[in-house]
Amino acid sequence: MTKIGRVSLVGAGPGDPDLLTRKAFQRLQEADWILYDRLVSDEIQSLFPAHCRTESVGKCAGKPSIKQVDICKRLIQLASSGHTVCRLKGGDPFVFGRGGEELLALQAEGIEVDVVPGITAALGCAASTQIPLTHRGLSQGFTSITAHGARALDHDWHALVALQHTLVFYMGIESAILVQRELLNAGMASTMPVAIVERGTQKNQRVINGCLQDLSALIVRHDVESPALLVIGEVTALPTELALPFEQHFSASAGERIKTPSYQSGIHHLL
Amino acid sequence: MTKIGRVSLVGAGPGDPDLLTRKAFQRLQEADWILYDRLVSDEIQSLFPAHCRTESVGKCAGKPSIKQVDICKRLIQLASSGHTVCRLKGGDPFVFGRGGEELLALQAEGIEVDVVPGITAALGCAASTQIPLTHRGLSQGFTSITAHGARALDHDWHALVALQHTLVFYMGIESAILVQRELLNAGMASTMPVAIVERGTQKNQRVINGCLQDLSALIVRHDVESPALLVIGEVTALPTELALPFEQHFSASAGERIKTPSYQSGIHHLL
Repeated sequence: MTKIGRVSLVGAGPGDPDLLTRKAFQRLQEADWILYDRLVSDEIQSLFPAHCRTESVGKCAGKPSIKQVDICKRLIQLASSGHTVCRLKGGDPFVFGRGGEELLALQAEGIEVDVVPGITAALGCAASTQIPLTHRGLSQGFTSITAHGARALDHDWHALVALQHTLVFYMGIESAILVQRELLNAGMASTMPVAIVERGTQKNQRVINGCLQDLSALIVRHDVESPALLVIGEVTALPTELALPFEQHFSASAGERIKTPSYQSGIHHLL
Repeated sequence: MTKIGRVSLVGAGPGDPDLLTRKAFQRLQEADWILYDRLVSDEIQSLFPAHCRTESVGKCAGKPSIKQVDICKRLIQLASSGHTVCRLKGGDPFVFGRGGEELLALQAEGIEVDVVPGITAALGCAASTQIPLTHRGLSQGFTSITAHGARALDHDWHALVALQHTLVFYMGIESAILVQRELLNAGMASTMPVAIVERGTQKNQRVINGCLQDLSALIVRHDVESPALLVIGEVTALPTELALPFEQHFSASAGERIKTPSYQSGIHHLL
């Protein structure tokens, strides 16, 4: 009788390997196969145990890449052959991670699955940029949406504006001009503060602050690349209202180091 | 010259100690003072290092408790005296955690602060109940809001309904009857699937599934207690559509154990 395998759908968080949960780290150690996404950072890949077989199943917008249905088939094949599989996904498996699709496909085959949450980009970037997603008097909640894909921009923009709370757009760089136009058309103030967070939580994180009316121009001017997060709302102005430049010392994965954000023309470089 | 202290605002996650991030665990080890919230689970408190001085600064609805301004004063006092303070908060510091207020108060005093994100309840409960927050064709995003406090129910309910995506209400048990009424009044279908997640991610987690029209009745009938999360949206019906009852085996903090959710009258008990 064949040994029965299993699959853990694991969130890798936003990039900083210290933002893996303890459970995610355990799942990496227990696995004998790791299937990981393109968004899983090199630093996290360096934590993969030597005994593990690994496979990148990265999907990359606009480039040939493995299809979702084939990722599901591969997971089923490996688990059915008795492997303990860690399916490692950037961020959280259930936030724009298509974890639900993999879960359903595996369960339909009777394969045991557990899900380990991850620090999704909104939380990771909020912490690393010191932008609170909720804040009394400014924002009573937050909404996470994707600005990627053909149907993804089929949002109710008036509703998004009416919420009057923090909006976080994932994968919004390419469509920032649309996001800006739709929010302005739906009545959001042109002076609404925004923050563009490039490579959030990683060593080379950049944060660009501005107003909604300049959103797409800022992305072009500063040549912002994916992955980046758009945070739109009053809360994004909180850090800049404080006495920047500031120095911040804290220990990180590579030991004690100093991060010195410099505040110039609305850009904070973390390193 | 006095040694300069610092404060880390750290998210403890939803309760399962294995859902602490590696960085949160590091901050606990580095601290010489830990100030923690009431929502920080006993299991996580058992991880506090023996050398640390600890203090509960829990706020509890309807009971006398330390005021936010006094928590800020205490943090400033400890850091100014040279201590390395870990301010441990349930969930994520920047999601209904009032982390922003503590950050601003500390920065106003020139005290160095870093923020370590945590698995917020929405992510933790989604994973432990296997409810994807986003799912192609069902939900293109999710909104986290609080249903707690006098002004907190001042939401634009029509906008929330118009989003047509997953809504997650934090601290919504006491006001579930209002949430139900407002969403129905704003046009949400009475048959909209909902899930009530009590003590999400903890050993004694309970999940109750039903429809929006039965939301408050379910809470009464099953005597649901805080902390609990209300998840409202089509995605909550996904797990029940699958072939429950199911068995799920996975290792947890206390070693290998078996979790056997039993599906009876719409309630899944995890243990």
